[in-house]
Amino acid sequence: MSATQVHINELSQLNARYVASIDEDNLEIWPRFFTEQCLYKITTAENYQKQRPAGLIYADSRNMLHDRVNALREANIYERHRYRHIVGTPLINSVGERTIQAETPFLVTRTMRTGEMSLFASGKYVDQLLIQGSELAIEKRQVVCDSIAIDTLLAIPL
Amino acid sequence: MSATQVHINELSQLNARYVASIDEDNLEIWPRFFTEQCLYKITTAENYQKQRPAGLIYADSRNMLHDRVNALREANIYERHRYRHIVGTPLINSVGERTIQAETPFLVTRTMRTGEMSLFASGKYVDQLLIQGSELAIEKRQVVCDSIAIDTLLAIPL
Amino acid sequence: MSATQVHINELSQLNARYVASIDEDNLEIWPRFFTEQCLYKITTAENYQKQRPAGLIYADSRNMLHDRVNALREANIYERHRYRHIVGTPLINSVGERTIQAETPFLVTRTMRTGEMSLFASGKYVDQLLIQGSELAIEKRQVVCDSIAIDTLLAIPL
Repeated sequence: MSATQVHINELSQLNARYVASIDEDNLEIWPRFFTEQCLYKITTAENYQKQRPAGLIYADSRNMLHDRVNALREANIYERHRYRHIVGTPLINSVGERTIQAETPFLVTRTMRTGEMSLFASGKYVDQLLIQGSELAIEKRQVVCDSIAIDTLLAIPL
Repeated sequence: MSATQVHINELSQLNARYVASIDEDNLEIWPRFFTEQCLYKITTAENYQKQRPAGLIYADSRNMLHDRVNALREANIYERHRYRHIVGTPLINSVGERTIQAETPFLVTRTMRTGEMSLFASGKYVDQLLIQGSELAIEKRQVVCDSIAIDTLLAIPL
Repeated sequence: MSATQVHINELSQLNARYVASIDEDNLEIWPRFFTEQCLYKITTAENYQKQRPAGLIYADSRNMLHDRVNALREANIYERHRYRHIVGTPLINSVGERTIQAETPFLVTRTMRTGEMSLFASGKYVDQLLIQGSELAIEKRQVVCDSIAIDTLLAIPL
């Protein structure tokens, strides 16, 4: 098996665990997929292309991700929707000694308590991943959303 | 390649064949993916979390799955919709000597004869799989749907 | 790793690059995934089943694919939507000395400038792929869409 395929498999598994932590409302373990110093940003395709620094959500450490989860837990006690991420096949753009650059498309559906389903978000993860033995950790994840008018109530991680 | 990755690949292939049998309306081969004694259940996330026994659809043998397909064939002769399953990367939760426990997210779209498309279902498969050489067979599959108000006309397998 | 799994991985990677070229609006590289003499066709499930020759879009060489991209570039200068393909696990139907027959489900979302998201297409790729060392090239790709009433303004490749 090629080294690239090994990393594709590793990233697919990381993503599978990452999205399960969100969709199963097990948010407390979600920060563990990141390195202690990290970058997590949700932005739009337009802002990403124009290299505008501003993101809708921004964190630069695992602690900030934990804070965000705590804030969500305090604020978001009513009316849980359900989210479901479907993640595509990763594209490995480059492999260095320590890190990997990769992009992966994703789609998220939302199901309301009434049963109504809708498309919630689509886009791609633009990642820098730290190689740690046979696993990967997220050093940088830019969540680049296709939509420009992202729900201002956006609360869950993507 | 790790033993886990081998099982991920096996389950991905099983799921690919499983959903193709449904989406290509080749339902007669769908029961073959199960062991003779098996459990197949469609339920909601809420019922699953509260461990309520009742499922929307329930079968405990391959013969019952065949009966279900026959019933669908007799009832459902008019106005075929088209369904399309997109299945995510499996998460292997544990591997025993004979069996594997795994969870896999899925999404199903429905296309009407008029061309109108909609999200039909999303959720996860919660599986116990029997290891048979280099293939897997389904011993238990709980289809846990995100939606609480599942279409009461739900007819196709998920 | 089985020979089939090798080809599944190769086709998954081909599809990942193929859909990224479309979704990133990098259409100029899209024809490179095909052999010089090739078949590319978008059709409906109904036409495909009845083996009707007519497709909505048809090309039988890489040059025709280039021409199509050029036409799109000239015509389609206003109001870009964003598309996102999510591609499922390939099913390898047969492996010959030179070529592989495979089918792969897909789903495409469209996001308007206003942020509104919708399901744009779903269906399956029915492929004949040329084995070229450790890579695959598309000799024939029939894009079989679930919908019968495909958007008459269908412009992007699928």
